[in-house]
Amino acid sequence: MPKQDLEFTAAWPRTLAALEQEGALLVAAGKDGKANPMTIGWGTVGNIWGRRVFIALVRPSRYTYGLLEETTDFTVNVLPAGRERDALLCGTRSGRDCDKLAECGLTAVPARHVQAPVLAECILHYECRVVHRNDVVPAALAPEIRESCYPEGDYHRLFFGEVLATYGDPDAL
Amino acid sequence: MPKQDLEFTAAWPRTLAALEQEGALLVAAGKDGKANPMTIGWGTVGNIWGRRVFIALVRPSRYTYGLLEETTDFTVNVLPAGRERDALLCGTRSGRDCDKLAECGLTAVPARHVQAPVLAECILHYECRVVHRNDVVPAALAPEIRESCYPEGDYHRLFFGEVLATYGDPDAL
Repeated sequence: MPKQDLEFTAAWPRTLAALEQEGALLVAAGKDGKANPMTIGWGTVGNIWGRRVFIALVRPSRYTYGLLEETTDFTVNVLPAGRERDALLCGTRSGRDCDKLAECGLTAVPARHVQAPVLAECILHYECRVVHRNDVVPAALAPEIRESCYPEGDYHRLFFGEVLATYGDPDAL
Repeated sequence: MPKQDLEFTAAWPRTLAALEQEGALLVAAGKDGKANPMTIGWGTVGNIWGRRVFIALVRPSRYTYGLLEETTDFTVNVLPAGRERDALLCGTRSGRDCDKLAECGLTAVPARHVQAPVLAECILHYECRVVHRNDVVPAALAPEIRESCYPEGDYHRLFFGEVLATYGDPDAL
């Protein structure tokens, strides 16, 4: 099914629903070009610096963190209904130990504007170029969040991706 | 006209349109309870830490910055069509020098969950409790953004507001 361009805001309700339920797949590729998907449950969209952005959060302990520090882009992909197991696998296994795309039967296809690929089987795609990074600041975080989300002190880095394209399956929304 | 609860994602297209056009009004109130609106053009929404958030950016030079450092909440309000002059005034004048609400004929009314008020004449409202703050990091920002947005080095602070309520006029969307 050919993908079609989607209006940035129109794609958001479906994307946030995915983030808050099974998760969406953030795909990054290292310098060797090998792509790795990681399930994310947190993220925001909007406009900063006159650019549409997708802010994704990745912990330093993650394999994807190294990929994002090595390269300058990522994609975010929303799985179709019925593939919750793939989201679970991509959120619990590490790309250090296995080829998650192969294990899930997901197909990396070239993106339009960035080096990281999109996933053919997904229904919504954001192509993002990293234009900024900053970190969660423990001392400036509400104590109840610090305790519930960071018992091991593995505070997220925020990757600010300028959204260069938003597209998906015609019936995705 | 009584306000009604709105679905968080449903309110976003109209809010982003306001941010990208005339701007939305961020309202903060200092310890003395005096409310001040500031026009914002940048912001993101989504879910972080399992909470719906509105991230607003404020430069340290702004009067509102001091209010937000003094207190722990803010509201974001979308003006109705035809009040672009008010957005312009609230984006160019400072609360240090004038009472912007009085100048614009905007009415502060108590919010439901936060100390900062909402503005009666606006059509959409977000009530936000600040749960985190961090800063734009010059060295980690794309050079073209650093040059175009920060010629004077007045880098934004990001205020992460947990959205406690989203509501507005019944016909706002």
